[in-house]
Amino acid sequence: MAIIVQKFGGSSVADAAKVNNVANRVVDTYRAGNSVVVVVSAQGDTTDDLIEKAHEINSSPSKREMDMLLASGEQISIALLAMAIEKIGCPVVSLTGWQAGFLTNSHAGNARIHKVDTERIMAELDQKKIVIVAGFQGLDKYDNITTLGRGGSDTSAVAIAAAIHADKCEIYTDVDGVYTADPRIVKSAKKLDEITYDEMLDLASLGANVLHNHSVEMAKKYGVKLEVKSSFEKIDGTIVKEAVSVEKMLIRGVARDNDVARIAIIGLEDKPGIAFKVFSLLASKNINVDVILQSIGREGKKDISFTVTKNNLNEALELLGAEKNALCYEDISHREDISKVSIVGAGMTNNPGVAAKMFEALYEAGINIHMISTSETKISVLVNVANAEKAVQAIHDKFLI
Amino acid sequence: MAIIVQKFGGSSVADAAKVNNVANRVVDTYRAGNSVVVVVSAQGDTTDDLIEKAHEINSSPSKREMDMLLASGEQISIALLAMAIEKIGCPVVSLTGWQAGFLTNSHAGNARIHKVDTERIMAELDQKKIVIVAGFQGLDKYDNITTLGRGGSDTSAVAIAAAIHADKCEIYTDVDGVYTADPRIVKSAKKLDEITYDEMLDLASLGANVLHNHSVEMAKKYGVKLEVKSSFEKIDGTIVKEAVSVEKMLIRGVARDNDVARIAIIGLEDKPGIAFKVFSLLASKNINVDVILQSIGREGKKDISFTVTKNNLNEALELLGAEKNALCYEDISHREDISKVSIVGAGMTNNPGVAAKMFEALYEAGINIHMISTSETKISVLVNVANAEKAVQAIHDKFLI
Repeated sequence: MAIIVQKFGGSSVADAAKVNNVANRVVDTYRAGNSVVVVVSAQGDTTDDLIEKAHEINSSPSKREMDMLLASGEQISIALLAMAIEKIGCPVVSLTGWQAGFLTNSHAGNARIHKVDTERIMAELDQKKIVIVAGFQGLDKYDNITTLGRGGSDTSAVAIAAAIHADKCEIYTDVDGVYTADPRIVKSAKKLDEITYDEMLDLASLGANVLHNHSVEMAKKYGVKLEVKSSFEKIDGTIVKEAVSVEKMLIRGVARDNDVARIAIIGLEDKPGIAFKVFSLLASKNINVDVILQSIGREGKKDISFTVTKNNLNEALELLGAEKNALCYEDISHREDISKVSIVGAGMTNNPGVAAKMFEALYEAGINIHMISTSETKISVLVNVANAEKAVQAIHDKFLI
Repeated sequence: MAIIVQKFGGSSVADAAKVNNVANRVVDTYRAGNSVVVVVSAQGDTTDDLIEKAHEINSSPSKREMDMLLASGEQISIALLAMAIEKIGCPVVSLTGWQAGFLTNSHAGNARIHKVDTERIMAELDQKKIVIVAGFQGLDKYDNITTLGRGGSDTSAVAIAAAIHADKCEIYTDVDGVYTADPRIVKSAKKLDEITYDEMLDLASLGANVLHNHSVEMAKKYGVKLEVKSSFEKIDGTIVKEAVSVEKMLIRGVARDNDVARIAIIGLEDKPGIAFKVFSLLASKNINVDVILQSIGREGKKDISFTVTKNNLNEALELLGAEKNALCYEDISHREDISKVSIVGAGMTNNPGVAAKMFEALYEAGINIHMISTSETKISVLVNVANAEKAVQAIHDKFLI
């Protein structure tokens, strides 16, 4: 008998029919002789509806009260899923985040899990119950309800799996696994049977949108075996684990991220410490900077370009504008019509031909590259957003067909 | 500085505008220098909507999961009210039932409060915060969320007021106080400035629908001073307390209750123990019997008539029908087109003329009386439902004009 954690997102429990579908999936796993813990998100648009209700009353409510409000969404979905399982006739109990033992820090709206106190979950499993847990939420040390922020239910599922030493953590989504590229763009994209945590992390942070980064990091840290699979079709998904058994492909996948804006600071003084000043200023406001390009100096001046996410663009421009005199630059420009396209794969650094082959693919497709960034496990380029899909297709064809 | 508990029902917080109205009422009390704890119910139709969602999935869900589901309703309203108060600029914190320390028994769907652990509420009041508490809900000793059943938010408010030794517990409703009769029926009905717990209990149980019985019982037990007042108009309401200072009126009010059905058991053997058998049978199924009339025997036979609430009628008839042979009666009949009209007032038993005056009023109005029941503090009569409003008006005119 295995211990299995299953996580279903909001779209998987959006209405009564879908809740019943999930109940059947869960009961199948339970009746096959497994101990089952299920993590669910709030139904469909519930969270957005609650946010709208809040904003009708207060456009900037405290995060503490927002967490109180939003946590009601998962409380509804766990109760409904439990009722659907009761109807099938299996023993079941639903638990809120705090009942399930999720202890977090006090960072309302974006809390981190400190610990999962598994006593209650284990006691319910010992009584042969299916345990339904509210994802995305926990309790801080002052007994305030907290939420985990974006992708929080994935993180809840992995944290439980780690704490109760589950044999597997299944993440059910709209897609049936992790692909070598977005199948909506690249028709020839292939589903991967297995992928390592690091490759998954690169794909996630590059916009593959299958698993939230933080949940993959936690799975890696605690060695939780993940499986990404379809909520609707009963087929094998993609296993995410430490060592991939058969290393067939050098390149694991091609990802695209449109949430990118480029800022160029032109005519900075070419002296030590200038880059430090720029990036420490941005870091002080928690603005994350990605691809960075520094031009070679000309006439005692240099330019620095870098990317931020689109929602950080305005704040970054304001910060830099306010410090124009201190930073001594000539001009600043920005553009949002760009996209980051990346190839991901372990061991790429041992194959210097990979970058050349990628640039060749883009050249053949007539796509201009604005910036390039490389690391141990990925190569990213910035291209015009209009060329992004064509770039993904061209790179995929070059490496993965 | 006083400690004041304020309770607002679901209709008082039904939408954003009403939530803002309540926030202003609360802040006025706070800014007048008081410590304020506010108990709120779920918004408007939220509870009904949640019940419908549940029944789409399972027509008979467990009460445990129903409580989990329904408790989300108050969690939403406390967060929204807190946000409205934040916007005005006062320090505030919302607390669920379990955060506020409501410990109950495990009777899901109809739990009783064992204790209110006031540590958290007092700590928040010490920090000069307005404390918003979810009514209707608590936690059992196994850490399951429970709900208190009908009128539960009134009970929550009184329980907190008792536990923190509040100076007053204000119950805000659609009406602006307790009247000598239902003002929708009797235009000349007068608002009472004060009323005793016992009189309020009689009025509540007789269908005056202002306060739930259990909350008045608890207020009496712990000496909590209640005030029933309007959510919308800023005028004094009716104080409910132990001793009424000036005893002007003998009769406190006239109440009507249409939730009455009469059962008549005809031709029972006229021997000891028969009435005991009938009523212990009904009591074994928790069917509450109200007005009882036993005829004088004729030819060794007697009849017993009594009333039950309408929702208990069918079960009572089935029970009595199944035991026809054991009880040895000839026939059974019932009717539902009746109403109970009562006058309530302390010290009525010392004024034997009261009953006569009441019957005179009904006689003058041409209203036939089916059954009569009297106690220390009330006199009730059963009349045809079609005559009920006329009866209330006639009795009110006789005593209270």
